[in-house]
Amino acid sequence: MLLNNINLPSSVTIKEVGPRDGLQNENQFIQTEDKIQWINMLSETGLSYIEITSFVNPKWIPQLADALQVAKSINRYKNVTYAALVPNERGLEGALEANVDEVAVFMSASESHNLKNINKSINDTFPILKPVIQEALAAGKTVRGYVSTVFGCPYEGAVSADAVLTVADELFTLGIQELSLGDTIGVANPKQVEEVLLEVLSRFPKERLAMHFHNTRGTALANVLVALNLGISNFDSALGGLGGCPYAPGASGNLATDDLHYMLENMGIKTGINRDQLLNAALFIEGKIGKLLPSHTMQTERGKNCT
Amino acid sequence: MLLNNINLPSSVTIKEVGPRDGLQNENQFIQTEDKIQWINMLSETGLSYIEITSFVNPKWIPQLADALQVAKSINRYKNVTYAALVPNERGLEGALEANVDEVAVFMSASESHNLKNINKSINDTFPILKPVIQEALAAGKTVRGYVSTVFGCPYEGAVSADAVLTVADELFTLGIQELSLGDTIGVANPKQVEEVLLEVLSRFPKERLAMHFHNTRGTALANVLVALNLGISNFDSALGGLGGCPYAPGASGNLATDDLHYMLENMGIKTGINRDQLLNAALFIEGKIGKLLPSHTMQTERGKNCT
Repeated sequence: MLLNNINLPSSVTIKEVGPRDGLQNENQFIQTEDKIQWINMLSETGLSYIEITSFVNPKWIPQLADALQVAKSINRYKNVTYAALVPNERGLEGALEANVDEVAVFMSASESHNLKNINKSINDTFPILKPVIQEALAAGKTVRGYVSTVFGCPYEGAVSADAVLTVADELFTLGIQELSLGDTIGVANPKQVEEVLLEVLSRFPKERLAMHFHNTRGTALANVLVALNLGISNFDSALGGLGGCPYAPGASGNLATDDLHYMLENMGIKTGINRDQLLNAALFIEGKIGKLLPSHTMQTERGKNCT
Repeated sequence: MLLNNINLPSSVTIKEVGPRDGLQNENQFIQTEDKIQWINMLSETGLSYIEITSFVNPKWIPQLADALQVAKSINRYKNVTYAALVPNERGLEGALEANVDEVAVFMSASESHNLKNINKSINDTFPILKPVIQEALAAGKTVRGYVSTVFGCPYEGAVSADAVLTVADELFTLGIQELSLGDTIGVANPKQVEEVLLEVLSRFPKERLAMHFHNTRGTALANVLVALNLGISNFDSALGGLGGCPYAPGASGNLATDDLHYMLENMGIKTGINRDQLLNAALFIEGKIGKLLPSHTMQTERGKNCT
């Protein structure tokens, strides 16, 4: 039966992607010192994983042009894994220079999105990622792979589980240790999540998988629930619901860390994260961005004394 | 296993409560002719149940002071059940005069909320509802009961399943045909929904139950998923995520009909509702309210060509 204690994990690792996936989608540059201060606040919440920036060409993501400075300047807490996105060997150089703990490579399950996002076909992307993964591993880093558009593509619509498996197979073969399955445009429904995950779980152990949901259509926590029930215990989210995908029309923010935290903790699933510190960190970045964060938790906090 | 075809209903009845639970929580009076036009639009979407108004004292809910006129003036579609909320015999008179199909009575599972909302203790509420239910049944109406604060009370916090069962038992004994279990302040989590529902389902058949979730903390669709998996096929929602509870601090809107519709239809669960007509009806009331509706679907529609 659904939600019995055998199936549900007793604890979950929330992987905070707000400093990267969140901020890269804001139409403004957040000051470097503010990013650093925010990441330091995040490190004190009990989060054990923070994706702090992206070493992409600043031409494409000017919001994160200060990747190296941010990565070098934050306080490093010993129980926190600090990760950075890297698209290629040049990006890896920066990540290694900053001595991040983990690098994350990325590509899409759908050809058109991969072409738009990376400017290469899927088949032409593997040779680019291969040396990145190998060199990162050789440097003692762990490597994570993202696969985007797992549950739907803004250009192609439906994406087959086979397309996801093909990319997953190749990335694991190249040496990634964890694969994050992304609902880039937030179209997934729980039935689909179960179907796709059952296929993926028939090939790869659940410990190697993470889910990366966007809440574009409000289904993210329902999708999390299905994944939990299949034993997944790694979830990506962005504090306050920051972010989206600039290359996916209509995409709104990531699943909010604070909303995910609310559901998990209230279900008795431990996250190790302190709610008050989390909300303080959300308020901090909300002030810097200068607009209200969209998460339900932040809205509810603001409406506590509703009229 | 979760979401297998044996457990999931093949179709769901969405009960639209926007004209009542939605509009009663707006800080303005929507013009009577606009309400009528909106309800007529809702009737054409394929919805089979619409709660059109509330026959409460206009002193308490001035937004619905035109209950009788609205109920008498709307077009009545033969495949649609038109329901109205009634607090007492006086309210019932109006509902009968307007010849609605169904009347809905309401009370809370928690003593303090019942006192605040109805100005009576729980035990003193039953004698008020008894003649309302009996007379409505005698007049050939169906009767629905709402129980509020099932998953938490803004004044007392946790609410026991026993408290819910006590109210449910008594209301069914008094003759209600369906009970709607309300997460009035939107605090429920999926594990709790399963626990409470299993208790309720041990006493009452699933066909007699409906779930009424608010999306205050973003968990509404995850909670729906659990209820679906236990065979529940009646869900209350308000188009665009209108509404809340004026007596519950921090409560935000109802689960949005459009978001619920998205999830269900994409899971292959039929609702009989046309999406385009639904969104047109949402745009109509959004224009009349003069502020943006908070549902994810409406936000996504607005952001289709996001920059």
